[in-house]
Amino acid sequence: MGEYSKKLPTLAVVGATGAVGTVMLDILSTRQNVWGEIRLIASPRSAGKLLTVRGEQVPVVALSEEAFDGVDVAMFDVPDEISAQWGPVAAARGAVVVDNSGAFRMDPDVPLVVPEVNAAAARQRPRGIIANPNCTTLSMIVAMGALHAEYGLTKLVVASYQAASGAGQPGVDTLRDQLAKVAATPGLGTQPGDLRRAVGDLGPFPAPLALNVVPWAGSLKQDGWSSEELKVRNESRKILGLPELKVSATCVRVPVLTTHSLVVHATFERDVTVEQAHGVLRDAPGIVLCDDPANGEFPTPNDVVGTDPTWVGRIRQSLDEPNELELFVCGDNLRKGAALNTAQIAELIAAELTAG
Amino acid sequence: MGEYSKKLPTLAVVGATGAVGTVMLDILSTRQNVWGEIRLIASPRSAGKLLTVRGEQVPVVALSEEAFDGVDVAMFDVPDEISAQWGPVAAARGAVVVDNSGAFRMDPDVPLVVPEVNAAAARQRPRGIIANPNCTTLSMIVAMGALHAEYGLTKLVVASYQAASGAGQPGVDTLRDQLAKVAATPGLGTQPGDLRRAVGDLGPFPAPLALNVVPWAGSLKQDGWSSEELKVRNESRKILGLPELKVSATCVRVPVLTTHSLVVHATFERDVTVEQAHGVLRDAPGIVLCDDPANGEFPTPNDVVGTDPTWVGRIRQSLDEPNELELFVCGDNLRKGAALNTAQIAELIAAELTAG
Repeated sequence: MGEYSKKLPTLAVVGATGAVGTVMLDILSTRQNVWGEIRLIASPRSAGKLLTVRGEQVPVVALSEEAFDGVDVAMFDVPDEISAQWGPVAAARGAVVVDNSGAFRMDPDVPLVVPEVNAAAARQRPRGIIANPNCTTLSMIVAMGALHAEYGLTKLVVASYQAASGAGQPGVDTLRDQLAKVAATPGLGTQPGDLRRAVGDLGPFPAPLALNVVPWAGSLKQDGWSSEELKVRNESRKILGLPELKVSATCVRVPVLTTHSLVVHATFERDVTVEQAHGVLRDAPGIVLCDDPANGEFPTPNDVVGTDPTWVGRIRQSLDEPNELELFVCGDNLRKGAALNTAQIAELIAAELTAG
Repeated sequence: MGEYSKKLPTLAVVGATGAVGTVMLDILSTRQNVWGEIRLIASPRSAGKLLTVRGEQVPVVALSEEAFDGVDVAMFDVPDEISAQWGPVAAARGAVVVDNSGAFRMDPDVPLVVPEVNAAAARQRPRGIIANPNCTTLSMIVAMGALHAEYGLTKLVVASYQAASGAGQPGVDTLRDQLAKVAATPGLGTQPGDLRRAVGDLGPFPAPLALNVVPWAGSLKQDGWSSEELKVRNESRKILGLPELKVSATCVRVPVLTTHSLVVHATFERDVTVEQAHGVLRDAPGIVLCDDPANGEFPTPNDVVGTDPTWVGRIRQSLDEPNELELFVCGDNLRKGAALNTAQIAELIAAELTAG
């Protein structure tokens, strides 16, 4: 615990060794500190491993009931089934759980929170669990929340350009391996199916990703929709408090390492000009407005990776309907899309506990 | 002229040495032959170069008025300003011009033709010129035309995933160069702006394309729209004969060599189920239906590159509106998106001339 006061709340990071966990430790090391002890928890095979957080080496402890003793807030970034099992255990031991899996997001007794949009929802948590949205939803929802507050959102049509790291470290490793093979064989990518024959391991993707795009993320749900597409729909409705919001999403993986991009066609109750949208987004917390195509300014994933905000550009008013906007939105899926939003929720709880 | 009858019409290929021209010669060599002489025309610096078409070596001749003497049909794939100047010259010499530039597409006296959709329009050509649509429009319009004929299209919301070769051979060369640099430097793509510093030459793109996506294609037009986005709108309206069709497109370049993909959200006058859409598209000429996600079947650009049809998958009925569909569509932008459609139009004219 070193220099940190014992009066500050104790935080547990469950899944500290994963792709998101690694970013989480970086984020905890750079944000203003609100924590006393930070306890790192992972699977038993990582127990004893030393990880650096806030400049200190901290040993990983194995996931167990006792690991949550004295923990005030527990952030989980683990597979759904691990969260489903261990989230309630941590909550029963007295921790407020902030969970980044899909296990609890649609549970009516679990709030789904994006601090810039619905911070107050975090106070209603009958199960002691707060859910963090899916990275694709998070990559656009701060911008949509700001515009909704002013113009009343009624419909979203979304096409995603999702990065490999949305599929975790195996996704990143697979894309890097495929890129090396493609770069070493100049003719690849010009004959039907040649990449599938050349790259070998598809990793977590259902088709080659290097020099390709793959219109699939997640698992198959009803009527041809993927789980990822339904998450964008259901989570947007819950976060914005709009259970009737019309949402159609098509999720596509692209050969980018980190940072999701989305093309959003948004319909509002009221007319909205580009200038008005600029005004709202320029003043909104957590947003970078990057929209001056005459000077080559629009966000790309590589401009955004490693940064915290949601970047918004290419805003155009529909030429047919004055209450419809097109936007291009980018967000780092490991930061705001995962670790950062989880940390922000945890900080809301820390403030509540410290004030109480 | 070798073995080909002098009674068959004479075809000129203007721009024979470009990226599309190269594909054109390949297409002319593999389709059923309807041409007598095929004359290859390019800029003076390519004159005398020998290119292979229909298994014969044919010398390139320099662009001049006389080069069009005796030509029945002239296919142009050259920059807008060259087409604007030389298309009327060829027409004045008696050739029917099929032009793949943007010079004439929106001219009310020039039909814009996709043979599967509006073949009859090719017969009304007061200037002796027929225009071939932009590659992005062409990558979806055969599928949209087939669905429109049955269900009455009223609105399109489109997000594109456009390949580097849409920017010609410099686009392909730039992406290959950038990929080689990225593959040689494993850490790249994870820090804001690191690709811009590392790849150097951006070629025809306004930002790095390897490990990135770039929400820009073409030039800036009014109110933040790009020329490419307005082409999708204006050309779709003209081809489908729907001057009031609502169209919003966002065009994004992705690190794919060849084959454009589009996410399309289509609204119809009448309700349409996935099963009904499958029925229409399964029977439509020029379409491959590839839509069985339970068995991992959906098109990706690498499945489609080098093939002629428009591939359609991921068809879903909106969960909110029974008259709205989502689709994922892929088409080889150099084949159906350019050379093939031009050849198909030229063949319509050849049939007309031969019948006449």
